[in-house]
Amino acid sequence: MTVHIPVRRRLDDVALDQLFREARTHNAWTDKPVSDETLRELADVLKMGPTSANCSPARIVFVKSREAKEKLKPHLSEGNRDKTMKAPVTAILGYDTEFYEKLPKLFPHADARSWFAGNPALIEETAFRNSSLQGAYLILAARALGLDTGPMSGFDKAGVEQAFFPGGKVKVNFICNLGYGDPAGLFPRSPRFAFDEFCTIA
Amino acid sequence: MTVHIPVRRRLDDVALDQLFREARTHNAWTDKPVSDETLRELADVLKMGPTSANCSPARIVFVKSREAKEKLKPHLSEGNRDKTMKAPVTAILGYDTEFYEKLPKLFPHADARSWFAGNPALIEETAFRNSSLQGAYLILAARALGLDTGPMSGFDKAGVEQAFFPGGKVKVNFICNLGYGDPAGLFPRSPRFAFDEFCTIA
Repeated sequence: MTVHIPVRRRLDDVALDQLFREARTHNAWTDKPVSDETLRELADVLKMGPTSANCSPARIVFVKSREAKEKLKPHLSEGNRDKTMKAPVTAILGYDTEFYEKLPKLFPHADARSWFAGNPALIEETAFRNSSLQGAYLILAARALGLDTGPMSGFDKAGVEQAFFPGGKVKVNFICNLGYGDPAGLFPRSPRFAFDEFCTIA
Repeated sequence: MTVHIPVRRRLDDVALDQLFREARTHNAWTDKPVSDETLRELADVLKMGPTSANCSPARIVFVKSREAKEKLKPHLSEGNRDKTMKAPVTAILGYDTEFYEKLPKLFPHADARSWFAGNPALIEETAFRNSSLQGAYLILAARALGLDTGPMSGFDKAGVEQAFFPGGKVKVNFICNLGYGDPAGLFPRSPRFAFDEFCTIA
């Protein structure tokens, strides 16, 4: 079998700045809309990020219509309400607690379903870890496509689950505004650790 | 206050391929080493990714020396042992269960420490979610710098914690080989979901 694998080089500084170094969490949004086509490309990019046994537990609702935004509104914490109502799109990142039922499709070369079925602690840990990874892929894929992001944990989890994932199978991890940010709404950048405060080379 | 915020554009296809679409989890490694300078730049890039209240719970050991690799070896699952011993670097991604003690430095404009202190369930959830995000930033920052990655969950967590984070304050989330991959060791790409299998536009 021949595998196509392109040459990997350090990306240029413009890309590193846009993805990480100069990217910011946005609080205010311009009127520029986000097309369904862009959301579909975002999904196609983020889904390629790695998850353990390719388990891909993330389930995402892109809240875009006025009606769906109004359904989300009562569950937002006060500090997140106005900016979220004004964002062109709010992604609700959920995780499927029955993700292992899809493993025969996603990981066809082993019986990976049997590693999880009947083990609720491992299911929860795996689904939460890997949907969090996929949430980070969502943030960085959005930035790679020129979008700005505003991830948030401040909302009523049970309320959002009942409104958008009724039935109890899908749990909510976090939510994330998407659009084209207005720099006027940015807070000053918070400090980060020096290398030795969080890393060691052994 | 003036905030510098560069213009954001869609990255080119070479960058999207390298970060996501053509990137692969590697199992075999060339002899090319990873310098300490590269690991320091990797940390400087990944730490800029967003975490809730800038809590930055990840604590990372880059296992590089023969001695440290031998300390890791007995805790690896059999399927991960050889490839990990041959990787130039293995990052152990931990999370600090006392991360909130650093919030007066990391989030100085609010008393964020008090949101967490004495609430072990919220501490664990926040540390696990946000260190997982930071693990994804590690993977994508490494790819952005031209490195290949091999993230893994197959190891003895308690053993790795005792060997590399003695004292119990830091827990292990996952580990990730870093280096320059040999395409000969790649498995075929596993299938991904179609848009409608994991996303909805509401």
